[in-house]
Amino acid sequence: MPQYKAPLRDMRFQLNEVFDYAGHYAGLSNGGDATPDMVEAIIDGCATFCEEVLAPLNLSGDQEGCTINDGVVTTPKGFKEAYAEYAAGGWQGLAHPQEYGGQGLPMSLNLLKAEMMGTANWSFTMYPGLSLGCMNTVFQFGSTEQKNIYMPPLVSGEWAGTMCLTEPQCGTDLAQVKTKAEPQPDGSYKLTGTKIFISSGEHDLTNNIVHIVLARLPDAPKGTRGISLFIVSKMLVNADGSLGERNAVKAGALEHKMGIRASATCVMNFDGAIGHMIGEKNKGLEAMFTFMNTARIGTAVQGLAHAELSYQGALPYALERRSMRALTGKKDVDHPNDALIWHADVRRMLLTQRAVAEGARAMIYNAAMLADHMVASVAEGDKAKYEHFDSELGFYTPILKGFITELGLESANLGMQVFGGHGYIKEHGMEQIARDARISTLYEGTTGIQALDLLGRKVLLQTRGKCVMSFTNDMIALAKPHLLDGGPIGKMARASFKRAVQWKILTVRLMLRAAKDRDVVSAACYDFLMYSGYMMMGHFWLKQAIAANKGLTQKGSESKEFYTAKIQTAEFYFERLLPRADGHKKTMLAPTSSIMQMDNNHFTFG
Amino acid sequence: MPQYKAPLRDMRFQLNEVFDYAGHYAGLSNGGDATPDMVEAIIDGCATFCEEVLAPLNLSGDQEGCTINDGVVTTPKGFKEAYAEYAAGGWQGLAHPQEYGGQGLPMSLNLLKAEMMGTANWSFTMYPGLSLGCMNTVFQFGSTEQKNIYMPPLVSGEWAGTMCLTEPQCGTDLAQVKTKAEPQPDGSYKLTGTKIFISSGEHDLTNNIVHIVLARLPDAPKGTRGISLFIVSKMLVNADGSLGERNAVKAGALEHKMGIRASATCVMNFDGAIGHMIGEKNKGLEAMFTFMNTARIGTAVQGLAHAELSYQGALPYALERRSMRALTGKKDVDHPNDALIWHADVRRMLLTQRAVAEGARAMIYNAAMLADHMVASVAEGDKAKYEHFDSELGFYTPILKGFITELGLESANLGMQVFGGHGYIKEHGMEQIARDARISTLYEGTTGIQALDLLGRKVLLQTRGKCVMSFTNDMIALAKPHLLDGGPIGKMARASFKRAVQWKILTVRLMLRAAKDRDVVSAACYDFLMYSGYMMMGHFWLKQAIAANKGLTQKGSESKEFYTAKIQTAEFYFERLLPRADGHKKTMLAPTSSIMQMDNNHFTFG
Repeated sequence: MPQYKAPLRDMRFQLNEVFDYAGHYAGLSNGGDATPDMVEAIIDGCATFCEEVLAPLNLSGDQEGCTINDGVVTTPKGFKEAYAEYAAGGWQGLAHPQEYGGQGLPMSLNLLKAEMMGTANWSFTMYPGLSLGCMNTVFQFGSTEQKNIYMPPLVSGEWAGTMCLTEPQCGTDLAQVKTKAEPQPDGSYKLTGTKIFISSGEHDLTNNIVHIVLARLPDAPKGTRGISLFIVSKMLVNADGSLGERNAVKAGALEHKMGIRASATCVMNFDGAIGHMIGEKNKGLEAMFTFMNTARIGTAVQGLAHAELSYQGALPYALERRSMRALTGKKDVDHPNDALIWHADVRRMLLTQRAVAEGARAMIYNAAMLADHMVASVAEGDKAKYEHFDSELGFYTPILKGFITELGLESANLGMQVFGGHGYIKEHGMEQIARDARISTLYEGTTGIQALDLLGRKVLLQTRGKCVMSFTNDMIALAKPHLLDGGPIGKMARASFKRAVQWKILTVRLMLRAAKDRDVVSAACYDFLMYSGYMMMGHFWLKQAIAANKGLTQKGSESKEFYTAKIQTAEFYFERLLPRADGHKKTMLAPTSSIMQMDNNHFTFG
Repeated sequence: MPQYKAPLRDMRFQLNEVFDYAGHYAGLSNGGDATPDMVEAIIDGCATFCEEVLAPLNLSGDQEGCTINDGVVTTPKGFKEAYAEYAAGGWQGLAHPQEYGGQGLPMSLNLLKAEMMGTANWSFTMYPGLSLGCMNTVFQFGSTEQKNIYMPPLVSGEWAGTMCLTEPQCGTDLAQVKTKAEPQPDGSYKLTGTKIFISSGEHDLTNNIVHIVLARLPDAPKGTRGISLFIVSKMLVNADGSLGERNAVKAGALEHKMGIRASATCVMNFDGAIGHMIGEKNKGLEAMFTFMNTARIGTAVQGLAHAELSYQGALPYALERRSMRALTGKKDVDHPNDALIWHADVRRMLLTQRAVAEGARAMIYNAAMLADHMVASVAEGDKAKYEHFDSELGFYTPILKGFITELGLESANLGMQVFGGHGYIKEHGMEQIARDARISTLYEGTTGIQALDLLGRKVLLQTRGKCVMSFTNDMIALAKPHLLDGGPIGKMARASFKRAVQWKILTVRLMLRAAKDRDVVSAACYDFLMYSGYMMMGHFWLKQAIAANKGLTQKGSESKEFYTAKIQTAEFYFERLLPRADGHKKTMLAPTSSIMQMDNNHFTFG
């Protein structure tokens, strides 16, 4: 069973040497409190909490799952106490305004927290995670009164929150939402309808749960422009903030899921539940999209988390378990067979996991800084700045969410593969990681939806390719000073440079084709997403390698081994993972007829 | 929940039009009874049994699982009755000699049977499947007396069998087997030891279970050359074949597994159990390897099965479920949104599943004919013929097992992906397919072991590349007459021709490198396996397309739609799946240092 240990050495390397987080915080309007000492204290404290409190509940939480009895949901043993400790530690309000009881720190610290918590116990992390979505909505769209009522207990963690979007007939296609909101004489609304797949919809961790609900007014236009947002709390809230009666919203059932079994996924029945409109009438869907970028980066973290955890499980097994001899002869001469790690194919699997986890970490830490700027600009009331960073982040988001979760899932499966048949046995905990990871490419928009968002919306519609041009310019700028370097850095820099040019050309070719044949977008988007992911991860691996090389050449470096292994992992990425992009490149340029020509009725013959 | 329907149209197409099974059986020494009418009757009867009896137990079997109580294992509801029907139908002895009560038909019919049964219910199919391994061992290595005692009840299905190889300290590395066999004065042995991961080790389907056990004599040499085979039956068998007392072999526990939950995977404790040696002393491991090829092709069937079943689940959902509009505008004009199947990215996933299932079917049906010849040559006592076919099959085996199970797993996951979030919910049955499929790349030798077997043993050691040269010559011979054809056939033939030449060159390059650097074999083998799989599947897709084209050009063809869709699926394969080989090609030629250079202690830093 993997024993989670926060990878502090790598986290610090990335924060301080790959990126300049100290400088970034210093330049951020709400970053003043995020001094290096404070950041260290947060990381250390969070690591301890995750290793000692959350990680031990991961396997037992999966085994026990959640139970429901007449609408009352019980979380697995230990979750309630862990949540209480989490709330008492002030962790929920880390990046929320001090006026509501938070610590007002930059939101990137929330992502670091989510990374550690999610790796230790993804199911647990979803409870406070959904509250964040709720809090962000109330904070950005709520009235002053609504904020004063709902924010303090949400920020303290005393209450939890959810996002109620999906209905039985629609997930991605929220234009089809049917839940009704009938206006009442007192200005409130009565909501009636069924929501499904509601994470944390009901549980025993808090005494109140605040639902953000998408619903339609009786006179609302059809489709996306007729959806409004409502606050519906489990317990009605009196004007003074105290709890009133039970509202008519109830968990009808828990879903039986492949994984994240300790996370309560509820069918929520609204039966004339009293709610309050939040934000503008009929503009609910727009408001939801505001948080899409940050929510999706939060899900990208799951890819990193499960690659990391599966690696942490597989590595000690590969060091201890023995089988056969390495092809190049005896390695562990005192034993009749060699440790798995001596076998090149096992090393290939471990290094894939490591390259994915650390590559994803760099991609996410980079995006987190953009998110910091975006959040800061809201507080600053600087709309132009907000839109600039939102647009930039918008390019990263589908790549991070789509690509990192796909590779996280692959890495989780490789961890099972290192264990051989034992990987399939529940007690070892490796198959749980693969089951838990499996949801990440499905929720918050499937990989296919991310791919359409990237190629159709972000690249073609919104920026006409400029987002790719801008990022590839960054790739070139990073690589250029190292093109003539000897050794691995020079080799990787040249490869990255060439790839940047290739990506530019490819994007232009796709744009030209899409102008003639609209099917190109949907037929090519998956391969374009994966291709873009490999390119972007390559860029951030080069960035890590350059930083490691710098560390290596500094006199008296005490971390020589760390830096060397870092460069070696980068080499592995460039030699063994990046070439996968070639298959995607060829495929995305294939004629659309190979996908589109088959008659819908000819997919099968009895 | 997928409703299994045997894909008879495609099975018949492959048997009669892609391959000439009628001609094949006519030329086989034990093929006389396998007339076209007989084959049709077997396929039809088996399809009905699978659709009506086995398929309905698939989801319930997973939900219920097996239970153990003081060594007594209970299978899920309905399994016992289904097994009784299976045995009564004479299905178990289909391809076993008539002198022991079987039908004496070619073994390829067993693979067709396994394909249908396994797709309908893989867990169930493992019970009779393990018996086959046991029967084959007794038949090929048992004394006349042993055969007379054990074969009739095994062939009738009255008894079941197992293979007891794995122990806690060793799976792949069977040289480390520790179970002891002490000779007794009466010529029998007493076996003591623990075996794990024993499929069908204990259950309630039959009144006796015959275990084939790997164990060591007290004076046995260390390692692989000191392992012998023993028959240990659950109930001791009297000389007249009647059942005697309970033997000292007992299931100690059931493994808790990710999937195939209705298959009883047992820890088997041998506590001085009485056994009889089978075959030659100390040559047990060699004997085991005799069946490796056929057993591994049996596991390759699992890749086909789960690709097919997941496709059968995903297709109706994609036709019915609606979401958004297709990018090229309204398709289902009477609805506010279009069926999923109109979205190119969904078509990509469905066509991948279909291309994998049908491509794998062709690969397996081809190998099954070689297996027929191999089995026939045993009966004929023609050792040279046996070795010829064993060697030829030996090249196909790791590719089929390794590649098809990897793609089957991918296809099972794509089926979940088509369902979106609903794919994660147990009731739909799609996640079960992914969990069941997950074992296929782990057991019967992991993908890494298949890869080493292919590149290290079959290509380099045993044939010095000749197996690749021979297969690529077949590719060229198939493609050559069509190189100048217009339309898709010509295009695919030219692609296959080029790929054959590329594969030849690549193999030579790898051989030259491996001669200098032994790490090449282990570092490149995974990519070589996958590359080879894509090449081979391409060849068999071209073969299908040519056969479909022939059908299409025949006057008055009533299956025009079928043939057209078949060629379109082939095109999809060539345009969208085959290009993945490029990534594998580049990766396998990467320097081994990118995998080998990292110090074992530098894989992680605290």
